[in-house]
Amino acid sequence: MKIMAKIAIAGAGAMGSRFGYMLQKAGNDVILMDNWEQHVETINEKGLTVDDNGQTQVIQIPAMAPRAVKEVQDLVILFTKTMQLKTMLEDIKGTIGKNTAVLCLMNGLGNVDVIEQYVKKQHIIVGVTLWTSELVGPGHISFTGSGSIGLQNIDPREQDRAAKVVSLLNAAGLNATLSTDVTTDIWKKACVNGTLNSLCTLLDCNIEEFGQLKEAPQMAREILNEFAAVAKLENVTIDVDEILTSLQKLGDTSQAGAHYPSMHQDLIQHHRKTEIDFLNGYVAKKGKANGIATPYNTLVTQLVHAKEQILVEDK
Amino acid sequence: MKIMAKIAIAGAGAMGSRFGYMLQKAGNDVILMDNWEQHVETINEKGLTVDDNGQTQVIQIPAMAPRAVKEVQDLVILFTKTMQLKTMLEDIKGTIGKNTAVLCLMNGLGNVDVIEQYVKKQHIIVGVTLWTSELVGPGHISFTGSGSIGLQNIDPREQDRAAKVVSLLNAAGLNATLSTDVTTDIWKKACVNGTLNSLCTLLDCNIEEFGQLKEAPQMAREILNEFAAVAKLENVTIDVDEILTSLQKLGDTSQAGAHYPSMHQDLIQHHRKTEIDFLNGYVAKKGKANGIATPYNTLVTQLVHAKEQILVEDK
Repeated sequence: MKIMAKIAIAGAGAMGSRFGYMLQKAGNDVILMDNWEQHVETINEKGLTVDDNGQTQVIQIPAMAPRAVKEVQDLVILFTKTMQLKTMLEDIKGTIGKNTAVLCLMNGLGNVDVIEQYVKKQHIIVGVTLWTSELVGPGHISFTGSGSIGLQNIDPREQDRAAKVVSLLNAAGLNATLSTDVTTDIWKKACVNGTLNSLCTLLDCNIEEFGQLKEAPQMAREILNEFAAVAKLENVTIDVDEILTSLQKLGDTSQAGAHYPSMHQDLIQHHRKTEIDFLNGYVAKKGKANGIATPYNTLVTQLVHAKEQILVEDK
Repeated sequence: MKIMAKIAIAGAGAMGSRFGYMLQKAGNDVILMDNWEQHVETINEKGLTVDDNGQTQVIQIPAMAPRAVKEVQDLVILFTKTMQLKTMLEDIKGTIGKNTAVLCLMNGLGNVDVIEQYVKKQHIIVGVTLWTSELVGPGHISFTGSGSIGLQNIDPREQDRAAKVVSLLNAAGLNATLSTDVTTDIWKKACVNGTLNSLCTLLDCNIEEFGQLKEAPQMAREILNEFAAVAKLENVTIDVDEILTSLQKLGDTSQAGAHYPSMHQDLIQHHRKTEIDFLNGYVAKKGKANGIATPYNTLVTQLVHAKEQILVEDK
């Protein structure tokens, strides 16, 4: 893979568009792929509006419906919502050739199981990212601050491919490193999202408010104990106290303050379905299949689904 | 006790005012007692506005702060919110003499434990009621339909007193009967409230919407299984399927339809604290004390308390 590579972003929402913008700026040949027509049209007709740490600019970057892209890519970065992952992989079959690396930086548990149905194991690279971004509206994203990425090829014999992707991301300032245990990283991030995102959504509160709730540590601990028990099945060790400490820090920082987690944005603000089945729902389902009691995650999942049924128009 | 009795309503909200109105109309000497000053003042200055099945009338009925009432009553009817019960009992000590019957028709579990600290067992009558009422604003209530009451003296040797109260209530058209197992009746009502009220509050939905939720029966069943396990400690048998059937009926009837349960009115609409500690919280607490796992009721209680912390001004 060249440093100047052909890169397709599969799911060009807030995060996908930020990555696309940064990777194109570094000289790569980038295409944004998204099924939201109005978003794609706006980007093609007016450009992508980028609020980059307070500086607004409009950049030209190609955008297309995923099915319309036929050219094989060097790198495809998956940034869909988890529940749209399967459809996206169907749509982008034409972009994945025998040398294409497929990088998944999506939140949630169980994504690899889905990707493996479409992509050979050697080509799959997964990771977690602390970059953030917000979708202001069609063709318009906004972000501040910086982030990092840890990633790994899921086939341990193929770390060269992952190393090349790290170089390519770092050339674009995306601050990537090779992880030695990305599965644990993914679980840890899911632990944070499975408490903070899910509970802020159910309680309709922001991260700062959540951090001040007397009940937050107790609820989080019960949820996380179940995450830890299910993670053990996948040989992942979760230190519940460590996650609780990081949750506390998130709630404390004045910068996270009035920020609403993405699941809240999806369901409460935009009346869209959530990724709950790939967080608490995954734990509840795997727990049930393996005789591990997961009442907390089961109820959280049921409540979020109930809330979806009430708020989401397209049921 | 005479049929024309001196009756004090301790807590003259929606239900208390309806009972006071009906009992006064039947010729009793009724006084409303409430700690909401604006409500009391409005009733004294302008009368109590009563929307009785669509007919609006203004009636004259005395209202006072509970502490100000010094005269011993024949009957005191407790209709406070459960968390204000203790304070109310302190405030109305002067109204309870050696022949006063104290009737509690309040929702929730554990009320008798509190009343017994202030009133001799022989004088305590407890019951459940299916009458409903709504507080429109200070000095203004609204209601439709009719209801019923089942009651019992908690000292089994004192059913004569309960029988007299039944006669007095029936003379006012309140449709009362002597119950033979009021503890079970109270638990059954708490089962309905602990699912319907608590979940409608958490999900911000009305009873009709709740009835249509795919997740409702599963969530209700888990919550009710824990209610049943804890009820057994008090020698009360709860048939979970029977409660589920009655919940289903409540969700089906077009008349219950867009009605929001009282806990939703309290917390979501009026930002007041809820009675959760006397429903799901009671089950969680008793379960914990007796080694019975109650994760569903524990989480429901924690979530409602968290929501209170977010919404209620006076924390």
